[in-house]
Amino acid sequence: MSKQEMVVLGQDGVGGCCPALLTAPLDEDQAADLAKVFKALGDPVRLRLLSMIASRAGGEVCVCDLTPAFALSQPTISHHLKLLKQAGLIDSERRGTWVYYRLLPQMTDRLAAILTRPAGQPPTEKTPAGAAS
Amino acid sequence: MSKQEMVVLGQDGVGGCCPALLTAPLDEDQAADLAKVFKALGDPVRLRLLSMIASRAGGEVCVCDLTPAFALSQPTISHHLKLLKQAGLIDSERRGTWVYYRLLPQMTDRLAAILTRPAGQPPTEKTPAGAAS
Repeated sequence: MSKQEMVVLGQDGVGGCCPALLTAPLDEDQAADLAKVFKALGDPVRLRLLSMIASRAGGEVCVCDLTPAFALSQPTISHHLKLLKQAGLIDSERRGTWVYYRLLPQMTDRLAAILTRPAGQPPTEKTPAGAAS
Repeated sequence: MSKQEMVVLGQDGVGGCCPALLTAPLDEDQAADLAKVFKALGDPVRLRLLSMIASRAGGEVCVCDLTPAFALSQPTISHHLKLLKQAGLIDSERRGTWVYYRLLPQMTDRLAAILTRPAGQPPTEKTPAGAAS
């Protein structure tokens, strides 16, 4: 139900997929939206949580299995998970006592696409802008 | 000369390329190093700067052509560029009065690889961990 908390990426850009980070200047709105996702990834604890969730066989992880890996309180872990969820990187579902988290691969796929140089793009060389390609 | 300011990514991981964000839990050191790069991307001004640099025909941009696009002072722009450079995302060269910036595509390539699901990885489904695949 909360998969659409981050819906702005992918509205316009290359192939209707993603903002074109490497092929055209981002506009202010695109940059603001994209920055939120990268900011969510810009923390070691959140990266470790995301990798634990993404790599778990079965595709989801109980918060009760995440917390013991960190020397942090459950509320702190929950806060980090909330930020990942708000960024559209993971989703959660409460079942009984526990909350279970899973990757939303659409978002990591989009980020990967944004960071991938388009096929045929020449390597970055110091050639004059007006030089024949 | 400063291309190696961020040298830690890619030391261990899938195929000797990258930390395996989506396929195995990151360890603390990997997460700390990777978080620095994502944190550098987690700002709208820096994302716009990176996209302007990466998409520039000729592969490099004079700082004098970057600053006018922002309602920010030259020192503020220079600070953001410094953070992108420290993260290993861009490099710079002073020629005469001006500093010229260019993308270091090795780092964006690495990030794209880190965020790309390995071929053959099943989509994230809510199947029990022990279920037959």
